[in-house]
Amino acid sequence: MPERLEDLGEDALVDRLTHHLPLGPEVVAGPGDDCAVLRTADPEVYELFKTDCLVEGVHFTGAMPADLIGRKALCRCLSDIAAMGGEPVSALVTIAVPGSRSVAEVEGWYRGLREAAERYGVSLVGGETTSMPKGTETALISIAMSGRVRREYCVFRSGATVGDLLAVTGRLGGSFASGRHLDFEPRLLEAKWLVETWRPTAMMDLSDGLARDLPRLAKASGDVGWWIDLDALPMHEGCDREVALTEGEDYELLFTLRPSELEEWQESWRAVFPDVPLTMIGQMTETIETPLEGGWEHFQEQEEK
Amino acid sequence: MPERLEDLGEDALVDRLTHHLPLGPEVVAGPGDDCAVLRTADPEVYELFKTDCLVEGVHFTGAMPADLIGRKALCRCLSDIAAMGGEPVSALVTIAVPGSRSVAEVEGWYRGLREAAERYGVSLVGGETTSMPKGTETALISIAMSGRVRREYCVFRSGATVGDLLAVTGRLGGSFASGRHLDFEPRLLEAKWLVETWRPTAMMDLSDGLARDLPRLAKASGDVGWWIDLDALPMHEGCDREVALTEGEDYELLFTLRPSELEEWQESWRAVFPDVPLTMIGQMTETIETPLEGGWEHFQEQEEK
Repeated sequence: MPERLEDLGEDALVDRLTHHLPLGPEVVAGPGDDCAVLRTADPEVYELFKTDCLVEGVHFTGAMPADLIGRKALCRCLSDIAAMGGEPVSALVTIAVPGSRSVAEVEGWYRGLREAAERYGVSLVGGETTSMPKGTETALISIAMSGRVRREYCVFRSGATVGDLLAVTGRLGGSFASGRHLDFEPRLLEAKWLVETWRPTAMMDLSDGLARDLPRLAKASGDVGWWIDLDALPMHEGCDREVALTEGEDYELLFTLRPSELEEWQESWRAVFPDVPLTMIGQMTETIETPLEGGWEHFQEQEEK
Repeated sequence: MPERLEDLGEDALVDRLTHHLPLGPEVVAGPGDDCAVLRTADPEVYELFKTDCLVEGVHFTGAMPADLIGRKALCRCLSDIAAMGGEPVSALVTIAVPGSRSVAEVEGWYRGLREAAERYGVSLVGGETTSMPKGTETALISIAMSGRVRREYCVFRSGATVGDLLAVTGRLGGSFASGRHLDFEPRLLEAKWLVETWRPTAMMDLSDGLARDLPRLAKASGDVGWWIDLDALPMHEGCDREVALTEGEDYELLFTLRPSELEEWQESWRAVFPDVPLTMIGQMTETIETPLEGGWEHFQEQEEK
């Protein structure tokens, strides 16, 4: 019996597939961070490159407003550009859709894509629309995005060290029940301010839940551990801790910073972003002091999200 | 009864979706050419950006060797980079696949992707692997590719004028029966030589068949017409003219050039590429003198390809 994808799980599969990929000298960071990072003709500027895919029945359903589905597709990539400290430049849209669908539905997706692109300053430079084979009723929207970041501001997942404080923007949990997963604000402005002002040592966006994403940041940073003050977790109203840790699609920034900067930092944040909470939730440690379980896992049995 | 995608057809849908997309000042060419073209920090260099998607049951079947499917996915994008006169830089891989599939199958796709990336000098900088929902058995591989081209060498579809000669590389037709659609050579070297030496006025790659692609080039060039010498069409052995014109997936270059350069040009081509035929198949005219019908059309009823 051959090994199946659903037995292996997403992280193990990606590890196996992306082992020893061909990477040329222009590559600063390949697989494993929120975006790929490439050198450009300007030594002070890096290019960012990202793809993200929304699958019907996994990431959205036909019952959701079409324009918000398009918005979400673009904003997920924007959240990844933000997580590197960057700004978006251009995007390409790939849609695979059954021919039996209405033109109006696809136009709705595009309306949301277009509005989000205008709002966040991304050029929509084209893409592809392809048919699904007869009998396949699932649609899919994939976005490829390019962005840029000044070299000195580019933040990777891999820079956390023992003793760094651990922080998150906003609140966690309840993204599906509330509909926030469809109309969240990618943290582009907050990330820009952070990288220009306080230089986080590591950063990523929370898309699969803190319980899954924090271990990825810790692993990328050389298998450091963490301690979390679970009572300090900023949660949306009505959410319990389990949901806040594992449901995913928060699209908030998770980042680490040197502890010396804490007090001055919190005050200046509040002055610039009065409506976005910023919470110290823990610290990077030598070993894992607060074990975490759960979070969104592709290819394994779980509730539809 | 709402209008369905299969009633509208691919070109009309793309026209409708890509009308008035947001395009910033960095965009040289948005939707409608083989690649999007963007300015970079170096005024002499443009960036190219392309996505292309292979859908199981439309572009490949599980009966084909997995590594050749991966190869094809990458090489289709390479063919588009070639069609602009460019060279590839990096690629991201998006795979959406049912969890019931074997790990070995996806590893096979990646083996082909990796080998093609090494062969053509592309960095594979990451991507995404996502599950299809339960009950959907279709897999999909989408590639996003960046490339670059010197500004002076960048060739668009839109540069053909009345009187230009019309030429194709290689031979047309029979791509499916022969398996060439799985292991074709993207015309990167030929395109580079052409743009550096003879400066085609317009160029594109032949993916949907000459009968569909030539009208696109003519339309992009301001609704010029064409005349084709149908007896001169370079065809693969065993193909009839209908197949050569309409089957698609030839991945040859279709381009136009000033007639004055013809004789010297053909001689030098033969010296550099002795194994790749180059054929003058016609000329751009004021009105369409050789009407063409057929070619691959997404969303409409036709044989699986």
